[in-house]
Amino acid sequence: MLLLTPGPVTTNPAVRAAAARDLAPWDNDFRAMLSRVRDRVLAIAGGRPGEHAALPLQGCGHFALEAAVRTFVPPGGRMLLPSTGQYADRLRRLAAEAGRTVVSLPVPDGSAANPAEVQAALEADPSIGHAALVYSETSTGVVHDVPALAAAAGRAGRRVIVDAVSAFGALPFDIGALPMVDSMAFTSGKCIEGLPGAAFTVARVDRLLACAGQAASWSFDLSDIYEHGVRNGAGSHRFTPVAQALAAFDAALDLFDAEGGQPARLARYTANMQTLRDGVRALGLQPCLPLEVQGPIVLNVHAPHDPAWDLQAFVDALKARGVLISNFYNTATPSFRVGCIGAVTPDDMRGAVAAIGAALSDLGIQTRRAA
Amino acid sequence: MLLLTPGPVTTNPAVRAAAARDLAPWDNDFRAMLSRVRDRVLAIAGGRPGEHAALPLQGCGHFALEAAVRTFVPPGGRMLLPSTGQYADRLRRLAAEAGRTVVSLPVPDGSAANPAEVQAALEADPSIGHAALVYSETSTGVVHDVPALAAAAGRAGRRVIVDAVSAFGALPFDIGALPMVDSMAFTSGKCIEGLPGAAFTVARVDRLLACAGQAASWSFDLSDIYEHGVRNGAGSHRFTPVAQALAAFDAALDLFDAEGGQPARLARYTANMQTLRDGVRALGLQPCLPLEVQGPIVLNVHAPHDPAWDLQAFVDALKARGVLISNFYNTATPSFRVGCIGAVTPDDMRGAVAAIGAALSDLGIQTRRAA
Repeated sequence: MLLLTPGPVTTNPAVRAAAARDLAPWDNDFRAMLSRVRDRVLAIAGGRPGEHAALPLQGCGHFALEAAVRTFVPPGGRMLLPSTGQYADRLRRLAAEAGRTVVSLPVPDGSAANPAEVQAALEADPSIGHAALVYSETSTGVVHDVPALAAAAGRAGRRVIVDAVSAFGALPFDIGALPMVDSMAFTSGKCIEGLPGAAFTVARVDRLLACAGQAASWSFDLSDIYEHGVRNGAGSHRFTPVAQALAAFDAALDLFDAEGGQPARLARYTANMQTLRDGVRALGLQPCLPLEVQGPIVLNVHAPHDPAWDLQAFVDALKARGVLISNFYNTATPSFRVGCIGAVTPDDMRGAVAAIGAALSDLGIQTRRAA
Repeated sequence: MLLLTPGPVTTNPAVRAAAARDLAPWDNDFRAMLSRVRDRVLAIAGGRPGEHAALPLQGCGHFALEAAVRTFVPPGGRMLLPSTGQYADRLRRLAAEAGRTVVSLPVPDGSAANPAEVQAALEADPSIGHAALVYSETSTGVVHDVPALAAAAGRAGRRVIVDAVSAFGALPFDIGALPMVDSMAFTSGKCIEGLPGAAFTVARVDRLLACAGQAASWSFDLSDIYEHGVRNGAGSHRFTPVAQALAAFDAALDLFDAEGGQPARLARYTANMQTLRDGVRALGLQPCLPLEVQGPIVLNVHAPHDPAWDLQAFVDALKARGVLISNFYNTATPSFRVGCIGAVTPDDMRGAVAAIGAALSDLGIQTRRAA
């Protein structure tokens, strides 16, 4: 079965094998593994030992983002948020329920957020202390230029929180070159191609120390996670970790390194997306986005204008042919979405395109190639 | 390798195999599995469909407990907490950082919390709305009589939150018979013998509805998790779940049922603990607790009074003999702790006792049997 959702993803068998073991988190072998994972994450993010820290957190991306907002934005603090889509909406709700005020910056549908507009909005309102930026908007497939957007916020003298959940490992990111970034969050089950369950934040140590005590949640206090590591060693996880997901993540990092790291991964995902995009267009289907803003993570395709179209029936027909995609869509008009990330290649995408054509045919929807 | 920590535990190979698959959380097969797991958890907890709900949450027991406190105790609300040990201390910190006020009720070391004292403390202070109760105190090994303690709080007209993290599945619990209990929390990697990473809360539906909006954390809002299930179906997990831990948990529930459920599990764990306790006493070692308060989850043993004693060296020597225990202790005086839970039998415990004797011998510490 080919899992083509934008996380969880298809994993390499070595990753799944690493998860199929009983693990004792307080064992010294496990500690050595966790410490190594934190070092590797820090290096991939461009963090500098002593200046930045990679912090593990149980759970999902939403948890890591709530932790970042609570830790770095003071209670009642204000945060600018480009409205890039559903994941920005979720970040807004996470912040609002935590008692932080979100100021939305409209971003037109199908566009990338504009650095000049971010800078202008921040300069126009000195009460806003932070910008929060979504790197890859899974709901639309648009990649936003977070390094440029963060730099714009920095020119306005503000701090930045980055949601790189479905981006990290594939899209370039160098926290060492972006001193205005307090933290960047991602999870184990996306572009590093591990299993879901472990979240990470890479954060500035000076800010972790300066912001200690304002999270109003012990579970989501990144400053406390940092201090726990200082007190107990980087291999000590605060509370019971998702041990199997961490072991799988370590195995996934081996494969990440062997492939050639972020540039190689971006190249493969881009080729996956291109192959898929060309393939569905050849079938007569229309991608939702122009190529200029289409990211390499997830491709949304307009649902065929055909009375026989039924998303769940299509998903079931695809599944019967060995390809699993999401059975929902986040775009304004009906679409289906296909993830381009995970341990899959352009050859797999060619197979997926053939399965899409056959599944449409199963539904009685004529495609160009089938015609 | 025999993992004898009080969670994560040794699991059955079928449990680990269930985790070694790529899983799509939005797939209908996964949804059916999650829905089934919620039904099974509800039934084991004595919940009544419609009156109670089993709510899944990513992560660890601390997260489920913070979620329970945030959801059911209003901001600024006051909560009585018998000071049973380190896990009560952690519950106090979780509540305090979330802005709830904790009133501690002293419990003497090595004693079980007293229901009459809980009732008296609540009756003496009408400003306290809740009691929070730890069922199995992992730090000491004492099991507290939560059904009796909850009933006492109920007689005082107060609500109750239960930490059953290392108890659920082994110790009896019937939320249907305890109408004063708002919620009971546990995790996948303890007495149900799954892998760590999934937490559950079983809660009253009327209270979930009445308390909606007071969590001040979207991630930890149990009312929202309940409503998400109502809106999207019980098989829909809010945010990306720890999919492999849930699949492993479902497999673990099959084994739980096959064994005979909670009574059978309690009997096996009690036999494990007795075998271990008798075995270490025969070696000349002293358990920390008298048998009257010793629970079946974890046994703490006083460190030998011998200058050659070194906990890490002992743990390493045990590990070399195939038995993994914690390399720390939570008791007031030096001890080592051995978990009695997981897919292990009294025969395994006899093997562990032999390994303990041999490991002490490796350290040059004479035991009675070796003498």
